[in-house]
Amino acid sequence: MTESIKVSPSVRFSRTLIEPALRAVVDDYHDDVARIVRYHFGWATPTGTPVDGGEAAGGKCSRGTLVFAAAHAVCGRFEMALPAAVGVELAHNSSIIHDDVIDGDAERRGRATVWAQFGTSLAVLAGDALLVSALRVLADPGSCDGRASALMARANERLIAGQVREAVLHGGDTGSIDDYLDVAENKTGALLECSVELGALFGGADESTVELMGVAARHMGIAWQAANDVEDIWGNAAVTGKPARSDLRRRIRTLPVLAALETGGPAARALAERWHATSAGDDQEVDALAELVEQAGGRVAAEDVSRQHLDIALSRLADTDLPPGAVASLAELFHLIVTRKSTIAPESGS
Amino acid sequence: MTESIKVSPSVRFSRTLIEPALRAVVDDYHDDVARIVRYHFGWATPTGTPVDGGEAAGGKCSRGTLVFAAAHAVCGRFEMALPAAVGVELAHNSSIIHDDVIDGDAERRGRATVWAQFGTSLAVLAGDALLVSALRVLADPGSCDGRASALMARANERLIAGQVREAVLHGGDTGSIDDYLDVAENKTGALLECSVELGALFGGADESTVELMGVAARHMGIAWQAANDVEDIWGNAAVTGKPARSDLRRRIRTLPVLAALETGGPAARALAERWHATSAGDDQEVDALAELVEQAGGRVAAEDVSRQHLDIALSRLADTDLPPGAVASLAELFHLIVTRKSTIAPESGS
Repeated sequence: MTESIKVSPSVRFSRTLIEPALRAVVDDYHDDVARIVRYHFGWATPTGTPVDGGEAAGGKCSRGTLVFAAAHAVCGRFEMALPAAVGVELAHNSSIIHDDVIDGDAERRGRATVWAQFGTSLAVLAGDALLVSALRVLADPGSCDGRASALMARANERLIAGQVREAVLHGGDTGSIDDYLDVAENKTGALLECSVELGALFGGADESTVELMGVAARHMGIAWQAANDVEDIWGNAAVTGKPARSDLRRRIRTLPVLAALETGGPAARALAERWHATSAGDDQEVDALAELVEQAGGRVAAEDVSRQHLDIALSRLADTDLPPGAVASLAELFHLIVTRKSTIAPESGS
Repeated sequence: MTESIKVSPSVRFSRTLIEPALRAVVDDYHDDVARIVRYHFGWATPTGTPVDGGEAAGGKCSRGTLVFAAAHAVCGRFEMALPAAVGVELAHNSSIIHDDVIDGDAERRGRATVWAQFGTSLAVLAGDALLVSALRVLADPGSCDGRASALMARANERLIAGQVREAVLHGGDTGSIDDYLDVAENKTGALLECSVELGALFGGADESTVELMGVAARHMGIAWQAANDVEDIWGNAAVTGKPARSDLRRRIRTLPVLAALETGGPAARALAERWHATSAGDDQEVDALAELVEQAGGRVAAEDVSRQHLDIALSRLADTDLPPGAVASLAELFHLIVTRKSTIAPESGS
């Protein structure tokens, strides 16, 4: 595939820049904390033996790559954005360690999650340590006069608000499509938006370009979240890195389910009746629910939402004053992320 | 008591400065997050109805008061240190919300803790929100050229490392007095040290005065932690705000226990044998353990450690170039905190 050949080298290159800087942050931790975080990143076994994880270690660094891509789009260079790339990766990894605690997910990247390996207490604290570091790397004097640090703090506030909203909605088994979009915009969108904004900021872009690029990334994030929810139900578990239909198994009302329920037809009514009727973990039951969601039109509706928000994202990019080549290059990256045709697709926070 | 009359008004005054600023930070949160945090601070019921909590609401603000006291000691004024006072209170409250999750403590300040009221997920996220805010309030441009923000980040890293070390030690039911002191220096000492350093920094003190005052506060923190552990076993539950002998009940090896076990005499041997022999929650059994700790000399030893570290703290204060009146005033505050003769004694993080 031509597209992925053009983009992949820079993804790999981003990772080769980011990983040593991430390791340097972690090397500075107290031994107890470093051991947990190194395990999380796939750099070491639970007892601390180094692992040569190759490309799988440390996750995909997709947010860090977006930082570099945005910096490159505005000025043709990107190395100076390294603190931002490291910061967004630290923030993202903090959020997924805490998210796995919240969701009770025992597996990620094909290995036991931090809480499953070390217990809830140490998972809470390891996430805290990464959160502090994420804010610290951007608080250094010289990081764009405090603007970078303010953007990072604001993104984390929105990410956390999105997680809280999601937890409240899941707890009450409620929520509309609007609630879903609100969660996606904050929980998923905020850090992707921040990644692109920081890249543009470190690249020297003016205020309005930073903002437009950020809005584009926010919509790309919503598009990606919708695509991710379709993937959870009808995708390939080997690609998602998570157990098949894990959201459906836990009766989480993701976008395809909400859209299916809103149609109100016979399949929607059957879905609503069946939702809590039987034992949650039963494979056949989960497959029957997936079938009803598809019959009611939930899959097609979710794919439409994803396409619409990707269109908005690409149109916001086109509104910027960036050179056409830079717009095309970022648009291609956005498209690859959302359609998951690249190894760069961001890892799910949920 | 003359001492407490001289100090208390400034404690109350500190709280009247800090609380509105804390409320402004929380007002900026997403509604879902604000509701949880307002409950935590005692400003509202779980459903959001405002509570006129009087002096009990929002905790004691002892760390914020230390910020002001340090600023006052170096320049005679203290209002300019408000961002630092707010920052340390936010960081402290983040850490106690997460600490209550880790320890499974269901009660604090006479009310249900955040996880007990809203569940573990929302408690993790509320703590995250406060942690981000703690770092954000000191990352504003103009906050001492990034030094304030670096001190705050470093203090949180140490606090988290101390929490991790403690969790690892408690998990293995191990640990020596040295381990205990290491945990106390980081988990308790780091934020008290940071409070005094930030106060001195905002007050315009030179590098070496900031550092000396910080070292003094670190030892005051260890002295306070030791006194706090004595209080847990032999203190008044109405004063500590926690259920009586909660540490002993959970078989946590606090300083008096560790010191008792190290004596190796008959009472120490009886204590070691009895430690895990019977059901943890039994009141009579807990009382019998307390009796053995005292017989073995654990109480006296812990009181000695507290006194020694308070002496070091006061002697470091005397080493500074501060005017004698300022040294005396800070020393008095330290003394009142450690001996818990004032409403300002910091709230336990565990």
